[in-house]
Amino acid sequence: MGKVYLVGAGPGAADLLTLRAARVLARADVVFHDSLVDESVLDMAPQARRVAVGKRCGQLSTAQHFINRQLVDAARRHGCVVRLKGGDPMLFGRAQEEISALLDAGIDVEVVPGISAAFGASAALGRSLTRRGLSRSVVFLTPAVGTGERPHAWADAARGAETAVLYMASRQAEAIAGGLLAAGVPPARPAVLVEDATLPTQRVLPTTVARLPETARQLAGGPALILVGEVYAELIEQGAQLPAQGAGQIAAA
Amino acid sequence: MGKVYLVGAGPGAADLLTLRAARVLARADVVFHDSLVDESVLDMAPQARRVAVGKRCGQLSTAQHFINRQLVDAARRHGCVVRLKGGDPMLFGRAQEEISALLDAGIDVEVVPGISAAFGASAALGRSLTRRGLSRSVVFLTPAVGTGERPHAWADAARGAETAVLYMASRQAEAIAGGLLAAGVPPARPAVLVEDATLPTQRVLPTTVARLPETARQLAGGPALILVGEVYAELIEQGAQLPAQGAGQIAAA
Repeated sequence: MGKVYLVGAGPGAADLLTLRAARVLARADVVFHDSLVDESVLDMAPQARRVAVGKRCGQLSTAQHFINRQLVDAARRHGCVVRLKGGDPMLFGRAQEEISALLDAGIDVEVVPGISAAFGASAALGRSLTRRGLSRSVVFLTPAVGTGERPHAWADAARGAETAVLYMASRQAEAIAGGLLAAGVPPARPAVLVEDATLPTQRVLPTTVARLPETARQLAGGPALILVGEVYAELIEQGAQLPAQGAGQIAAA
Repeated sequence: MGKVYLVGAGPGAADLLTLRAARVLARADVVFHDSLVDESVLDMAPQARRVAVGKRCGQLSTAQHFINRQLVDAARRHGCVVRLKGGDPMLFGRAQEEISALLDAGIDVEVVPGISAAFGASAALGRSLTRRGLSRSVVFLTPAVGTGERPHAWADAARGAETAVLYMASRQAEAIAGGLLAAGVPPARPAVLVEDATLPTQRVLPTTVARLPETARQLAGGPALILVGEVYAELIEQGAQLPAQGAGQIAAA
């Protein structure tokens, strides 16, 4: 009976995996990965059979129960099974469903944390999520626009914290901006879109809450975060001087 | 003129640093580190002179402006200067003050992200911060108990999200519980204290918001997180079956 490792693939760049993740990947027999995990990360598991389970931005390409079944089956045939998830497995990764299915089948699980996109983006921007006197709280959320019993719960959560990071939100920027404004977030509050954080294709688009819809139209279709808060005010002032490319090097003026 | 790297030291265990962090540490000439960074992490910078700047749980042992000055001076004498911060540099790390001081002095800066304690703790607990149908938002905050213009802003932020992670809070558990209850958080809402996350000394104490003060008295004095939310309900039911020690291995029953 093998063991299943839920491993965080980090925000994009392969050298942002942890040492522990790299060690587990190096001896993996099979790797089940999301479609957004970069080829260079998969290359860290040279001996492993690769199985794309095809989730992209939270959309369900492979049904979750089928992924669970595949993981259980693989653990019965192999010693080291890796479930590789973009960012950190424990944030928006449906990890609990996989852990439960594995434990129910009598299979041991180990979770190896990863750098979530918000931290990769913050490093690249050179902007702290929190700042003394300005922000002591940061909320990470996925907006459930117009669904569920409390359709505006996500916007209330975003307003309640001083910095907000919205995952899997950039494709519905119009509804996001509307929800934030309706929840009482000021239209001029600074925001920034970060696409392909930490990858060479990274793009940084400073804006405001009111202008989110028009700014989101400039995105190229990669995974993007929306970051909102007064900590991003200087980004708007700096404009084009931003690190539009690359990974986190902040040059002195 | 050297360059300064703000590097995330991760939650505790040395193999939870990123590959990039390890590579930067290996060639560091000087490392300025918080007092909580583990010896095994510092050993990853074998050639470096070590300077403890002595912050512990957010308390100011070395004045921030003096740390800024030391970083600028070091960058003028060395090629590779590392400022090593527990967790991720961009969350509760006062990184912005250091980045600003360095850029103002004409020194280049690069931020290397790290695994924040919440993710280390979540991996160790085997509990996702978010869960479909239960939690779509998680807030990270440091409570400012009884200070500032909006003394209850932190509690409102905690109540606004479905999962809350409180950093640097366990020593004021009485005031924390009081603030949460006053903000409308139900007394029976599940909570869990995680001390020394990912280290061999890790301790996991499931509780509820109302019982936080008595549970916090069992802590041994290490850095501890308070995690609050319905996603921790099963931890209370499981009780003693928890992974009380070690780093993230969840054994099947």
